[in-house]
Amino acid sequence: MSRFWSPRIKDLTPYVPGEQPKLRDLVKLNTNEHPLGPSPRVLEAIRAEAGDSLRLYPDPNGDALKSKLADYHGVSPKQVFLGNGSDEVLAHIFFGLFQHGKPILFPDITYSFYPVYCGIYNIEARAIPVAGDFSIRPEDYRGDCGGIIFPNPNAPSGKALALSEVERIVGSNPDVVVVIDEAYVDFGAETAIGLVDRYPNLLVTQTLSKSRSLAGLRVGFAVGHADLIEALERVKNSFNSYPLDRLALVGAVAAYEDEAYFRQATEYVVRERQRVTDGLEQLGFEVVPSAANFVLARHPDHAGADIAAALRERSIIVRHFNKPRIENHLRITIGSETQNDALLGALPDIV
Amino acid sequence: MSRFWSPRIKDLTPYVPGEQPKLRDLVKLNTNEHPLGPSPRVLEAIRAEAGDSLRLYPDPNGDALKSKLADYHGVSPKQVFLGNGSDEVLAHIFFGLFQHGKPILFPDITYSFYPVYCGIYNIEARAIPVAGDFSIRPEDYRGDCGGIIFPNPNAPSGKALALSEVERIVGSNPDVVVVIDEAYVDFGAETAIGLVDRYPNLLVTQTLSKSRSLAGLRVGFAVGHADLIEALERVKNSFNSYPLDRLALVGAVAAYEDEAYFRQATEYVVRERQRVTDGLEQLGFEVVPSAANFVLARHPDHAGADIAAALRERSIIVRHFNKPRIENHLRITIGSETQNDALLGALPDIV
Repeated sequence: MSRFWSPRIKDLTPYVPGEQPKLRDLVKLNTNEHPLGPSPRVLEAIRAEAGDSLRLYPDPNGDALKSKLADYHGVSPKQVFLGNGSDEVLAHIFFGLFQHGKPILFPDITYSFYPVYCGIYNIEARAIPVAGDFSIRPEDYRGDCGGIIFPNPNAPSGKALALSEVERIVGSNPDVVVVIDEAYVDFGAETAIGLVDRYPNLLVTQTLSKSRSLAGLRVGFAVGHADLIEALERVKNSFNSYPLDRLALVGAVAAYEDEAYFRQATEYVVRERQRVTDGLEQLGFEVVPSAANFVLARHPDHAGADIAAALRERSIIVRHFNKPRIENHLRITIGSETQNDALLGALPDIV
Repeated sequence: MSRFWSPRIKDLTPYVPGEQPKLRDLVKLNTNEHPLGPSPRVLEAIRAEAGDSLRLYPDPNGDALKSKLADYHGVSPKQVFLGNGSDEVLAHIFFGLFQHGKPILFPDITYSFYPVYCGIYNIEARAIPVAGDFSIRPEDYRGDCGGIIFPNPNAPSGKALALSEVERIVGSNPDVVVVIDEAYVDFGAETAIGLVDRYPNLLVTQTLSKSRSLAGLRVGFAVGHADLIEALERVKNSFNSYPLDRLALVGAVAAYEDEAYFRQATEYVVRERQRVTDGLEQLGFEVVPSAANFVLARHPDHAGADIAAALRERSIIVRHFNKPRIENHLRITIGSETQNDALLGALPDIV
């Protein structure tokens, strides 16, 4: 703490991302990255852009990418907002749409950045307990609040909510913005983007970090009513005119031009998820049914922290959250066949 | 305006960046980009990184780049903060170090994003008039305030302040943070980074967008006392864990590994700046002596807006600010020899 700090800074509890180890030989199953690389067309587009044009600013509005995403999702470009990863998009949402002097509702077991955004913008956070099986119960999201946000599928549970249930939450809260954070949607849930034209209070966020294998490129977006998008544009243009660099913009466009690769890479993860789930269950783990690219699992006879530590000794890293209700669970990213074999091969010595 | 917006959003006046035209054949002298491309080593590093590793998150702390910048500037990595362009760095500075319920001082003729940051974070802005020759007068930056910020060289005047005068401002305001925005410093001013170990209230920002020819890559940084940097890290980690993508991180490191290219490219601009200044003066323009990669100039017989419009008809774009004191000036970026020839060749028909 320094006297130069704005007073609120000392009370912030920043988000702690999963470790990004500098060692290369680790089996890294801790941050939900895709086991396969991005489409070759993405890499080609980036290499082609890596030239003298980097001396020039990017398009501050990212029009080419907005058009591509609008076409892909059947909306208008005015309904699309771009950000430097969906984390930046979410930050602008909390600033631009969630500051109403009322609490923001989100599940107790969910993405741990939400309470951090509440902290930085001085917004009250209200955690709504998920059911014992980690389900989100739509009937719990009611009453006087400043907004609602949850991931679908949820993280770190991997549980998907049916689109009809998502719609129930959106429809029963017409006076506040409801944000569906669809970071993992492509691995097994149904997107709510098709509902945005019917619900002016619905905002859907997605990222290219997971199903497009582009965590290293930092591109995320939101889709919703043009009025909601305008609020986000005003915040963005009062913060940083050019959040997406030229390489990210062309790479992201190319990612949506290779649907075949995307489908194949997604199917790979879904197939491996089943194999990992089966393998874990055979070892006595309880595995939450997952619609994402990770599984949340616990072993009845071993503490989560102990298993994580034992895996780490074997150069395998998974994510353990020291949080109520999931302190004995592990969140395990679905890796490549080789990585998953390493995990399933190491566990019999541990459990 | 929508009822879903946070109340402050409707009062924001977002920053308007210089036009990024989609036509390719324009002589683009409006956003202070470098006329030469980045170092070939930068492009090589980016192409090498454009592979499967893009599936992985970047290093959230950017340690390799922090170390590189720390070595280059003779400070410790703990004294370096990284951002998605220096605009993001500045936004976090206003949030983390300038919210003290007191006005922030900056010149009346300066980077027009400063009042926008004040707007988004509800900070009072106090514009201090520059002298008639556009000089910043250190004695005007005194008294009870929440912080001070100015560019050196200033923009859009291009006027540099001697380091001794910068130090006077920093030294006479020990109770508030003084930010020197050195976006253009490499073209002819002296950096204040050498002072940071003596002044715990000094923060210096720089960007790779100008002298490193990397506007398209979005990398900026701040250097100062570790306590100031810690405030910025807390804000950043409550906002977006990974603001710099993998390509930007490796490209930026490579930019600082090719000093020869950097010097040569900077000298090119300085040489062309003299030629453009001489050419404009021969045509009757008054040119503010510039230490940056642009010149601010006015013609006694022609309105700035008229000259800008006439140049535009000839496919040459320069920046005109419709603002008091400079409404008859043009800010002209120093382009390539060919671009500058086009400018100097077109003007005799206009003035």
